[in-house]
Amino acid sequence: MALTLSRKAQAVKPSSTLAITAKAKELKARGIDVVGFGAGEPDFNTPQNINEAAITAIQEGYTKYTVASGMPELKQAVCEKFERFNHIHYEPNQIVISNGGKHCLTNIFEAILNPGDEVIIPSPYWLSYPEIIRLSDGVPVYVRGGKEQGYKVTAEQISAACTDKTKALILNTPNNPTGMLYSREELEAIAKVVVEKDIYVIADEMYENLVYTDEEFVSIASLNEEIYKRTITCSGLAKSYAMTGWRIGYTGSSVEIAKLMGSIQSHQTSNPNSIAQKAAIEALRGPQDTVEAMRKEFNKRREFMYEKVSKIPHIHALKPQGAFYLFIDISELLTMSYQGVVIGTVSRLAEILINDYQVAVIPCADFGFDDHIRLSYAISIEKIDKGLSRIEKMISDLN
Amino acid sequence: MALTLSRKAQAVKPSSTLAITAKAKELKARGIDVVGFGAGEPDFNTPQNINEAAITAIQEGYTKYTVASGMPELKQAVCEKFERFNHIHYEPNQIVISNGGKHCLTNIFEAILNPGDEVIIPSPYWLSYPEIIRLSDGVPVYVRGGKEQGYKVTAEQISAACTDKTKALILNTPNNPTGMLYSREELEAIAKVVVEKDIYVIADEMYENLVYTDEEFVSIASLNEEIYKRTITCSGLAKSYAMTGWRIGYTGSSVEIAKLMGSIQSHQTSNPNSIAQKAAIEALRGPQDTVEAMRKEFNKRREFMYEKVSKIPHIHALKPQGAFYLFIDISELLTMSYQGVVIGTVSRLAEILINDYQVAVIPCADFGFDDHIRLSYAISIEKIDKGLSRIEKMISDLN
Repeated sequence: MALTLSRKAQAVKPSSTLAITAKAKELKARGIDVVGFGAGEPDFNTPQNINEAAITAIQEGYTKYTVASGMPELKQAVCEKFERFNHIHYEPNQIVISNGGKHCLTNIFEAILNPGDEVIIPSPYWLSYPEIIRLSDGVPVYVRGGKEQGYKVTAEQISAACTDKTKALILNTPNNPTGMLYSREELEAIAKVVVEKDIYVIADEMYENLVYTDEEFVSIASLNEEIYKRTITCSGLAKSYAMTGWRIGYTGSSVEIAKLMGSIQSHQTSNPNSIAQKAAIEALRGPQDTVEAMRKEFNKRREFMYEKVSKIPHIHALKPQGAFYLFIDISELLTMSYQGVVIGTVSRLAEILINDYQVAVIPCADFGFDDHIRLSYAISIEKIDKGLSRIEKMISDLN
Repeated sequence: MALTLSRKAQAVKPSSTLAITAKAKELKARGIDVVGFGAGEPDFNTPQNINEAAITAIQEGYTKYTVASGMPELKQAVCEKFERFNHIHYEPNQIVISNGGKHCLTNIFEAILNPGDEVIIPSPYWLSYPEIIRLSDGVPVYVRGGKEQGYKVTAEQISAACTDKTKALILNTPNNPTGMLYSREELEAIAKVVVEKDIYVIADEMYENLVYTDEEFVSIASLNEEIYKRTITCSGLAKSYAMTGWRIGYTGSSVEIAKLMGSIQSHQTSNPNSIAQKAAIEALRGPQDTVEAMRKEFNKRREFMYEKVSKIPHIHALKPQGAFYLFIDISELLTMSYQGVVIGTVSRLAEILINDYQVAVIPCADFGFDDHIRLSYAISIEKIDKGLSRIEKMISDLN
């Protein structure tokens, strides 16, 4: 046999958010004054109590294998957090600790999908969903939540998208890239469809701590027993505790699915980093005031960014309720000209912005919306101000 | 659709080594004086210089995302190590840093296999190989290396096992579970077949630092340009530096395969723990005297264990050259009786040993040899002595 490669793997697109973040970092390293709106991580340090717990863990020798699916004590801490924060009851044998949220999703889809099974993805979506699903032999089916419906999908749309091959729906609230939050009523309607169609719902609640309005954050699994049985709730430490580098995510699911995911993980990666697991216990059980302080700071930036963007001509955004992104409709710019050439595509727009205006933005074609960009406000107000002024300048240079 | 699960995932066996190690831990926690021969990890602490590098990394805020395929500085350190220790030249863009050796193998097989591709596994083998291959839609093909051939396979056997579906050979030296080392001549003959058949070879060299004889450790990729192109060399920090809990493994491969693995990893897990990556840089570049101290201690235990096992009637072992396992032929015991009942299977033997003699051993049916057990000498000489005496007592109780 010749030295061929996996067709499936070759079809994977490298994560473009990481690529753009890396490019901005590279330019900065060369001394160029770039404003990077690409960040998918808090710009705060990991809180000190968590760092100290990790240092203690190292000093005490917690540097050995743990149970492959996670330390029992961490599973217990996750159960307490699910009970307290999400109002969902899970036992430790329903919890699997993995190497971050992406790894949770990988385990989930490897555990539930057979080749050709369809997974409904509300669009816009986080760009890794389709790739993770395809790597597990699933087929992504997109349901569009346009601006006119607040970038959210309805229960009716999900119902209409179901076929006899539909295995699951993935639901991300608060949403990346839009910052939108599903209300209790919306979730109740969706849950009804999920139960009726007898499919799974993967509830990606990674941004659950970052909600800025009075509206409550609701976990779909908390609604009733029938939807609980069908839900795999997925969250992690990265966004809530400024712990992106530590790589700790977790799931709550049926015992059966948790067992299957644990078994897959025991062969494919074994336990997540033991020190990070100890740090995660402190994060979940320790004081939560730093979470609240970060949330307040993000909220200030959200207000600032939304106000300023609203005043820039030709671009439009809905005010986000959660996460740390503004999702911006740039469709009007696509038909305008820069230096005598029609812009045409969002990736061209992003190229002009990084090359000629030193602003890194995320073009959202890979998020399902090829006329939108995503700006992160996980950077300081000064940088937001400077970066938006540059975008405004660019737009004023168009005709 | 009903709430079915992945057929492939349901066929996965949970890792039985981890299960037995966990069982021994559980009994110990209950105050029972168990001797656990199951350990797949050094009983030494992570060296202090490595711990300190990790603590510094935490204090300096290395707690953010890194490049998904690993920090550039760590890739550089891995290249230096490959050059110095393995005599293989790789550039940083040929390196991928993953969450431990299992994760490296997962990425490799996801990158190269298409459904139905065959992977030749010399038997006995580390029990996760077939599961990882099957999860990537590959078909394991076993080639037996019996005791009479030093538990190693020959180039002729590999050649005979190749079909038009053969995609790769996985070669583990020093070997888990046998501790055997392939010589330069053996590897040259195997390399010739690999090149002739135009397949890949995955060189699992996780135990490369743990060789106790004067025989040299040889990396197959170092032999010549043709085999270099076809080799994916896989190693990690766990066994050499007593860093099992940290979860850092790495591969050297063609740029093309590295790119593919990096792309898969960017979606499925993102970067490995950032602090562990900083610790890994110190491990690879810092003083290596602790590695040598551990090696010497393992060697003492190897001599002791081999001597004592050789004197126990009815069981037989070849003297291992590397790793930290003794692979023991217990076939004579299977036809003997315990409390009036024929033992029959190796798993029954292991049950009797744990339940009635408080010794945990690894029955090797899942390693391809259902009449062998694996004993780890990653425990103290005192424990080895006590455990082997218990095994001897058990054997004297048989008839």
